[in-house]
Amino acid sequence: MAGSTFGNLFKITTWGESHGPGIGVVVDGCPAGLALNEADIQSFLDRRKPGVSRYATQRNESDSVEILSGIFEGKTTGTPLSMLVRNTSQKSSDYSEIASYYRPGHADYTFDEKYGFRDYRGGGRSSGRETIGRVAAGAIAAKLLAELGITVTAYTQAIGGIEIPDPQCPLELLDINEARNNPTGMPDKETSLKAEAYLKQCMENLDSAGGIIACRVSNMPAGVGEPVFEKLDANLAKAIMSIGAVKAFEIGDGVKVSSANGSSNNDSFRMNDNVNHKITKTTNHAGGILGGISDGSEIILRAHFKPTPSIFQKQDTVNRDGENITVQIKGRHDPIIVPRAVVVVESMTAITVLDLLLQNMTSRIDKIKQFYIK
Amino acid sequence: MAGSTFGNLFKITTWGESHGPGIGVVVDGCPAGLALNEADIQSFLDRRKPGVSRYATQRNESDSVEILSGIFEGKTTGTPLSMLVRNTSQKSSDYSEIASYYRPGHADYTFDEKYGFRDYRGGGRSSGRETIGRVAAGAIAAKLLAELGITVTAYTQAIGGIEIPDPQCPLELLDINEARNNPTGMPDKETSLKAEAYLKQCMENLDSAGGIIACRVSNMPAGVGEPVFEKLDANLAKAIMSIGAVKAFEIGDGVKVSSANGSSNNDSFRMNDNVNHKITKTTNHAGGILGGISDGSEIILRAHFKPTPSIFQKQDTVNRDGENITVQIKGRHDPIIVPRAVVVVESMTAITVLDLLLQNMTSRIDKIKQFYIK
Amino acid sequence: MAGSTFGNLFKITTWGESHGPGIGVVVDGCPAGLALNEADIQSFLDRRKPGVSRYATQRNESDSVEILSGIFEGKTTGTPLSMLVRNTSQKSSDYSEIASYYRPGHADYTFDEKYGFRDYRGGGRSSGRETIGRVAAGAIAAKLLAELGITVTAYTQAIGGIEIPDPQCPLELLDINEARNNPTGMPDKETSLKAEAYLKQCMENLDSAGGIIACRVSNMPAGVGEPVFEKLDANLAKAIMSIGAVKAFEIGDGVKVSSANGSSNNDSFRMNDNVNHKITKTTNHAGGILGGISDGSEIILRAHFKPTPSIFQKQDTVNRDGENITVQIKGRHDPIIVPRAVVVVESMTAITVLDLLLQNMTSRIDKIKQFYIK
Amino acid sequence: MAGSTFGNLFKITTWGESHGPGIGVVVDGCPAGLALNEADIQSFLDRRKPGVSRYATQRNESDSVEILSGIFEGKTTGTPLSMLVRNTSQKSSDYSEIASYYRPGHADYTFDEKYGFRDYRGGGRSSGRETIGRVAAGAIAAKLLAELGITVTAYTQAIGGIEIPDPQCPLELLDINEARNNPTGMPDKETSLKAEAYLKQCMENLDSAGGIIACRVSNMPAGVGEPVFEKLDANLAKAIMSIGAVKAFEIGDGVKVSSANGSSNNDSFRMNDNVNHKITKTTNHAGGILGGISDGSEIILRAHFKPTPSIFQKQDTVNRDGENITVQIKGRHDPIIVPRAVVVVESMTAITVLDLLLQNMTSRIDKIKQFYIK
Repeated sequence: MAGSTFGNLFKITTWGESHGPGIGVVVDGCPAGLALNEADIQSFLDRRKPGVSRYATQRNESDSVEILSGIFEGKTTGTPLSMLVRNTSQKSSDYSEIASYYRPGHADYTFDEKYGFRDYRGGGRSSGRETIGRVAAGAIAAKLLAELGITVTAYTQAIGGIEIPDPQCPLELLDINEARNNPTGMPDKETSLKAEAYLKQCMENLDSAGGIIACRVSNMPAGVGEPVFEKLDANLAKAIMSIGAVKAFEIGDGVKVSSANGSSNNDSFRMNDNVNHKITKTTNHAGGILGGISDGSEIILRAHFKPTPSIFQKQDTVNRDGENITVQIKGRHDPIIVPRAVVVVESMTAITVLDLLLQNMTSRIDKIKQFYIK
Repeated sequence: MAGSTFGNLFKITTWGESHGPGIGVVVDGCPAGLALNEADIQSFLDRRKPGVSRYATQRNESDSVEILSGIFEGKTTGTPLSMLVRNTSQKSSDYSEIASYYRPGHADYTFDEKYGFRDYRGGGRSSGRETIGRVAAGAIAAKLLAELGITVTAYTQAIGGIEIPDPQCPLELLDINEARNNPTGMPDKETSLKAEAYLKQCMENLDSAGGIIACRVSNMPAGVGEPVFEKLDANLAKAIMSIGAVKAFEIGDGVKVSSANGSSNNDSFRMNDNVNHKITKTTNHAGGILGGISDGSEIILRAHFKPTPSIFQKQDTVNRDGENITVQIKGRHDPIIVPRAVVVVESMTAITVLDLLLQNMTSRIDKIKQFYIK
Repeated sequence: MAGSTFGNLFKITTWGESHGPGIGVVVDGCPAGLALNEADIQSFLDRRKPGVSRYATQRNESDSVEILSGIFEGKTTGTPLSMLVRNTSQKSSDYSEIASYYRPGHADYTFDEKYGFRDYRGGGRSSGRETIGRVAAGAIAAKLLAELGITVTAYTQAIGGIEIPDPQCPLELLDINEARNNPTGMPDKETSLKAEAYLKQCMENLDSAGGIIACRVSNMPAGVGEPVFEKLDANLAKAIMSIGAVKAFEIGDGVKVSSANGSSNNDSFRMNDNVNHKITKTTNHAGGILGGISDGSEIILRAHFKPTPSIFQKQDTVNRDGENITVQIKGRHDPIIVPRAVVVVESMTAITVLDLLLQNMTSRIDKIKQFYIK
Repeated sequence: MAGSTFGNLFKITTWGESHGPGIGVVVDGCPAGLALNEADIQSFLDRRKPGVSRYATQRNESDSVEILSGIFEGKTTGTPLSMLVRNTSQKSSDYSEIASYYRPGHADYTFDEKYGFRDYRGGGRSSGRETIGRVAAGAIAAKLLAELGITVTAYTQAIGGIEIPDPQCPLELLDINEARNNPTGMPDKETSLKAEAYLKQCMENLDSAGGIIACRVSNMPAGVGEPVFEKLDANLAKAIMSIGAVKAFEIGDGVKVSSANGSSNNDSFRMNDNVNHKITKTTNHAGGILGGISDGSEIILRAHFKPTPSIFQKQDTVNRDGENITVQIKGRHDPIIVPRAVVVVESMTAITVLDLLLQNMTSRIDKIKQFYIK
């Protein structure tokens, strides 16, 4: 079944394997008139590139994007944008051994069960390189949201249990510039150094680490999200959980709500004197969404990433002939994928928010009349 | 925008408000030949009925279902099944006051922002009664899965931080019969009693509580789930997060993976001597899903529910005229919705698993040939 | 597979069999704020009722609609509208014989092949009563379009080759009032009388007749339709061809274009001095659609309906035991379905136009900015 | 709104403009295990190439396809197939003049109305080159259908009113080899020569011609099509009407049914002694579809194409400044698009039939049990 399309009005279709000729995405439904060029996309793609630090693979992946359609005179035309990144540095020989067995924690076994065989080179379609298409599309969504004054910001909240001091603090208290430039993606220099030390230890142990990525949407208008199944939080959950290695999704207070009381978890509404007659909330335990619809406050979500399954310790598994074996994975593998996944979370969030923002434009007849009756 | 349809091949469309004439669902794409009658649906609906215990509202909602189409000679015909539950015990006078202000933690404000006005009676479309349609559909999905030997079992794992002893233990060690008959939905009598005491305390404090619902899918075939966006876990996340009051979703080890190491989080594959040449895993940190595709082991997920927002303490809020006010909600409200939501989680899980199970039937040309070439 | 949902932003899901408890539809995505009551729906349903003339079955089907959700204080709320029509006059005994064989021209055989068995009472899901759901939804779409100044008008253009004098003439030259009140649905009294005589002859011959229904959309804004697959004409074709018994679909000049020349088929653009600086066309061979997008002129389409397959002559067929037999169908059957199908064509057209009208609202970033940035 | 995706389980997403860097398609949901290479695709693309005859443009478009993903070891993997054709011979200078005005019969005006501006080079997205993506996808669908013994065959039935002798005759009586090699695509040499003479006359008149393309699906299994909206004929209608320049769609007897009687239009069922206990029809007025579901006989459809709107005569139109002007189009334009569109009709038919064939696999619980319970 076709599973590589996401979104309704703003719709992305990704394609590509780790070691095929290339990776890409078609973005359909992008409104006409957005100024856009390849540098806009490339700047997003560069944020997920490996080789930035010792905690990412040292492969030299240039990942240069080419826009093949949908742009004319520097603006989007309303027709599909096709984007292509050629695979250049992959060597199939690196991966020939794993053709015969199932790596623990990877999708080798499930792909074989589903499709009868698999492209085993570098994980094929289940490789992290699959996210290139998501990020290229996310760059467009983020730029379009920015035109509406909406910004999406993701960062690493925790690595291996080492967490930034006050995860729920206002966004402006976080050092996002630090996050964009250090090897962990954490918006706090001190915590980042601790996390680096932890990752160094993991590597010495031939082990890997997981982490938490948080994402916030600022200046979000109220009213976005379509009950009862196309709720904003439901779609964000699907978007984020579709990223490889994510095993949990939280919105607002997330897992804490199950042990909270209503008196502390409810957010009071208050009129904001500073903003002209605007209804605001005094707290934001809900993470900006009530009944599946944005409430005008900041959207806060978190994704929990599992540790990289490719570790260099000996592991038990079975081969395609149904024999128990012990294997030791070779090659180049990140001890953690979280820093490179920050921009992926940001991208999937932007894509989802934009799609529902467009859908919300048709919710009231008075607005439709304004649009069509001049 | 239309948001009340869920699923692709097995598709449900729910409708109805708390205080309108009725609530219901259309189930489309149900395969022909399933023996089905109203008692099958009613037994599921009865599990979400209020009035079972002191922790649920004492409203007398009979919630009798009528099947209006799609059945002939006791079997599904392959055409849409329409199911209707009349609203009988609702009194609009109970809710007239809340028309004028926005209850904290509810969707009153966001519905007004989105649609310009709202059906304020009993929460309208955002009422918990909306889940009647989900559960009626879930009863069908669960019965169909049972025909394939697949069972879906949900239960309360925790209430207000009070958790059953070993949440990850094998399903057969849990007392599901206990869970189906006590007022908490917990599969452990002792914990349930503790939770009851806690809830009693909440009620005395005019407060409410949240909790965790776990759900397991047993005897799941491998290969189900469609990368990269229609992954099994991504769709389960959307399904569960679309339920009102859910603020976090976990699969397998869930939030724990972000602080784990690869060496402990990876599940080893081993041949199972007891099952004829079957590949199994020695542990199940992944919760039965690898790369978005079922791996043949048990699927385990958890949903975190926030405390009921309707509490009887005084709360700050604003009214529709934009004035700051203090309110005290009246009426009948569950101090916790978790026990009644167990069957909702079970239903949404069954619906999602079934839909992807059907989608998986088209993944290989050899299987398609077997189907069409006699 | 689920096949009973149509539309994207304005989405309808129909259900129901001829002889089940009822027939209905869920309309999801209807914008909030539309004044609507059951009389609005009933007036549309009454137009497809049998018993109006001797050319329609003499069954007494009251077909009273009940709106079960989505309305509050006389206006749509933006949530799904569920509508129910109880089946009241059906007698299963009428149809027991046809359980054993396949009526020529009906879907009996194909339903058996697809689903393994069928609800044979009155044609089950493939009965003309299925269109009740479409018409109830069409009433809403038409009312909403009327709020935007757009009107949809269908009528019978021809019966058994007897055609109204100038089928492509301006709508205002047709006598739509006549069409709404005579038994043929033709907007020309003289032609209608000829068609009646023809139908009388058909009935005497124990035979049936087909016909053409035309539909026009007036005051259509330009820009509606989404290339390259969700074009306005492509979606209209699907909508109309999904109506039982339609075997051909035409837009504008339709089948005539294949023998025309470009010089005569092209429509010239001209500035309209009467309308302030509006671009118009001097002719409308295109039927109001260029490149799949509305061009601001009238949309004209036609549907060709086959003769009622239920005729009272002896016919050859096979039974479920695979034996060649000769049958003679009994019961009450219209010699033509066209007059009753006029409102069905009008409904499906309205639904399709409205859905694409909503989709078009997101095509330009300047319009999106106007919507969200105050 | 996103409009460039077609299909559900077998889903194609096309992209590209006439004069952008390239044109392509992503095919998602192709079952794993189909032997496939670029030559399979190229042979289809070559059938729509210009330059084959004097009735097609003399542009030298090589249209070489590159498969970028979804293939491993010569077989489809079940993941998306991305295919790219670079635009090589386009010169923007050819088209600079038409930027300022609206060509009659083209989509220039409607694109401007919808998107605010347009890529005017060679028609941009509304160019006939858009069909490259459809044809590349169609090649895959056709190959997969062939594995199931199903063949799809399109050909030119008529040009400018000049029609092959017996359009409804059995497929084996048509000279398809002739059709594949002459400049008209007609399966009858004599008629083809007449049509050529007619086209020569059109060119001398600086005019253009339309025509009819017929398409047949042989060896179609019964049971395919999903009532009531995803009917096989409804989806075929959408697929075919989405092709540029198609203004009418017919299935089986098509427009003739509206003047036929039931006694002649009904197809009798008979047991076929030659095929083991198979139910067949003695005639096929229905075109292989009853109630929206395939009946096991040949599917026959027809598409009516309008004459090429680009003619070299003087034409009246308006420019972007709202002035009435007279223009004379220059450049290279086919006097008829029908011969090159034959493979497009064949492709869209194959894609649609395959998608519904896959959907039908989930219609019965006994078949689902056979699939999952070993």
